Amino acid sequence: MATVAAKAGEAGIVGAAERLGVPLLTYAAADLAQVAVPNPSAAPLAAVGTPSVAEAAALLGAPGGELVVQKRKSAMATVAVARRRPRGRLALVGLGPGARDLMTPRAVAELRRASVVVGLDQYVDQVRDLLAPGTRVLESGLGAEEERARSAVAQARAGHAVALIGSGDAGVYAMASPALAEAGDDIDVVGVPGVTAALAAAALLGAPLGHDHVSISLSDLHTPWDVIERRVRAAAESDLVVTFYNPRSRGRDWQLPKALSILAGHRAPATPVGVVHAASRPDERAEVTTLAALDVTTVDMVTVVTVGNTASREIAGRMVTPRGYRWQS
Amino acid sequence: MATVAAKAGEAGIVGAAERLGVPLLTYAAADLAQVAVPNPSAAPLAAVGTPSVAEAAALLGAPGGELVVQKRKSAMATVAVARRRPRGRLALVGLGPGARDLMTPRAVAELRRASVVVGLDQYVDQVRDLLAPGTRVLESGLGAEEERARSAVAQARAGHAVALIGSGDAGVYAMASPALAEAGDDIDVVGVPGVTAALAAAALLGAPLGHDHVSISLSDLHTPWDVIERRVRAAAESDLVVTFYNPRSRGRDWQLPKALSILAGHRAPATPVGVVHAASRPDERAEVTTLAALDVTTVDMVTVVTVGNTASREIAGRMVTPRGYRWQS
Repeated sequence: MATVAAKAGEAGIVGAAERLGVPLLTYAAADLAQVAVPNPSAAPLAAVGTPSVAEAAALLGAPGGELVVQKRKSAMATVAVARRRPRGRLALVGLGPGARDLMTPRAVAELRRASVVVGLDQYVDQVRDLLAPGTRVLESGLGAEEERARSAVAQARAGHAVALIGSGDAGVYAMASPALAEAGDDIDVVGVPGVTAALAAAALLGAPLGHDHVSISLSDLHTPWDVIERRVRAAAESDLVVTFYNPRSRGRDWQLPKALSILAGHRAPATPVGVVHAASRPDERAEVTTLAALDVTTVDMVTVVTVGNTASREIAGRMVTPRGYRWQS
Repeated sequence: MATVAAKAGEAGIVGAAERLGVPLLTYAAADLAQVAVPNPSAAPLAAVGTPSVAEAAALLGAPGGELVVQKRKSAMATVAVARRRPRGRLALVGLGPGARDLMTPRAVAELRRASVVVGLDQYVDQVRDLLAPGTRVLESGLGAEEERARSAVAQARAGHAVALIGSGDAGVYAMASPALAEAGDDIDVVGVPGVTAALAAAALLGAPLGHDHVSISLSDLHTPWDVIERRVRAAAESDLVVTFYNPRSRGRDWQLPKALSILAGHRAPATPVGVVHAASRPDERAEVTTLAALDVTTVDMVTVVTVGNTASREIAGRMVTPRGYRWQS
């Protein structure tokens, strides 16, 4: 409830707020006088110094909101009602690697709750059957990342419950970071983690990520190659298991061989390498090979490549990295 | 169906195998003669050169199995039945960070399917209500990792459907690698990936893992400190976002400050640091602080600490690492 400061002690108003269990907000007449209202009047201007009390106080009490009931007068009181602008919500939802049974229930709940879903068209297709009727879908093609991020934040700012979706984990080489670079503290943000490609691939290969491991993207579209190469060298020299995201595409074909040659400078030719295409999707393929034997032409954009460290072994066709350096030595 | 090589062309046997739609296995009499059987006989020895055809062939056709019907004679034929030893199944199941709605449906299905569940007592407690009636539970306390791994593999070898469970992803600093070091190709293995702690923490912090990132365990129980320190230095020098697992415990308190000081040699004091305790559990706490301001005494064994790279920023209270080095620069 909101009114002019001069009425802050009026028994009827104070009692009503108490009975409703809501705080009583009061504003100076000079502040109320600044608010544009549909029905200004000379009477309150003369009595308390503002052309509107009810409508102006309602609007001041609901910043950014709208007047839904204009002033109504009874013998003893005048009221108006404003609706607060709902606080927007942005859920950053990781759908997992592809199979429906690797998507978390929390991700499903966020999709059902959303009034607006924003995402790459192929990920939207993956979950369309989970959306509530009437959900607005803003889908776009590859390469429109910044537009999707801005659009998701703008929809949340307008008060909607938005789900910004991505495959794997939305925070790993994905949409969460450009969206959060735009988002302020004027919206609620909820992150729903998902099974990222490195984990989905590892589960098919055996246990290659049993000890320290790094994820490196070989895409030099947004990152200079010298930054990428420095990280590959660091991984090679410090004996980290490495998972390459975006390892190879048509027209981007020399980066993976170069990265593997750096690793081969520090690891034996027999070091196990896992190659997993489209983990958990219908065209899934997983292979354990070696640094020496890997055929890079089998690798494309939906493949992840995991290179073992000096302790990794192929055991019964599976790729295994021990949990520690004294563990089972 | 299995018999002696001398009967490989007998119309009644060949026809029966065809009608049943099963292969006809045949063994040399000398091989059948090696098999210990309950009912050897002089008649087949004289006729084909082995004291048993039916029982010995049934046992040879089901290696490791057992004779469930001893030989029965009719006027025209003698039969025995052996049961193949069922092929064991070992599911390596990641339960996720703790909240039930961050456990994948595939993990739940594997728990329901299991006839034996092996795990740390606190993880077993987390899923006991999901197990089928009669499921055998082999639970143990902290520190019995190798015993759990051996026990899970032994149960699978004995023909059971075993779920070896762990929190987060079972392949990340967890039970999958010691178990697979023991497992041969005589059992089926299924990996069920899960949301690992680094991802669960990141979703609470914002999007700290938007670009290349490394997971490093600071536990020097099974790994010499010089190996760990070399990896921290490599991460520092190559500007990787770092998530520390097992960052600090009672009695193991200098490793985290040492690791942070190495990173601070390459990153500004204002570099964002995320500290997440018990992500998705009832006592969850997440905080975004900085390299300079982090209070290490707030960190314990169930906390993960994520240190940003030089491009990471705190934006509206959230920790964000850009997707690329030219992205939104």
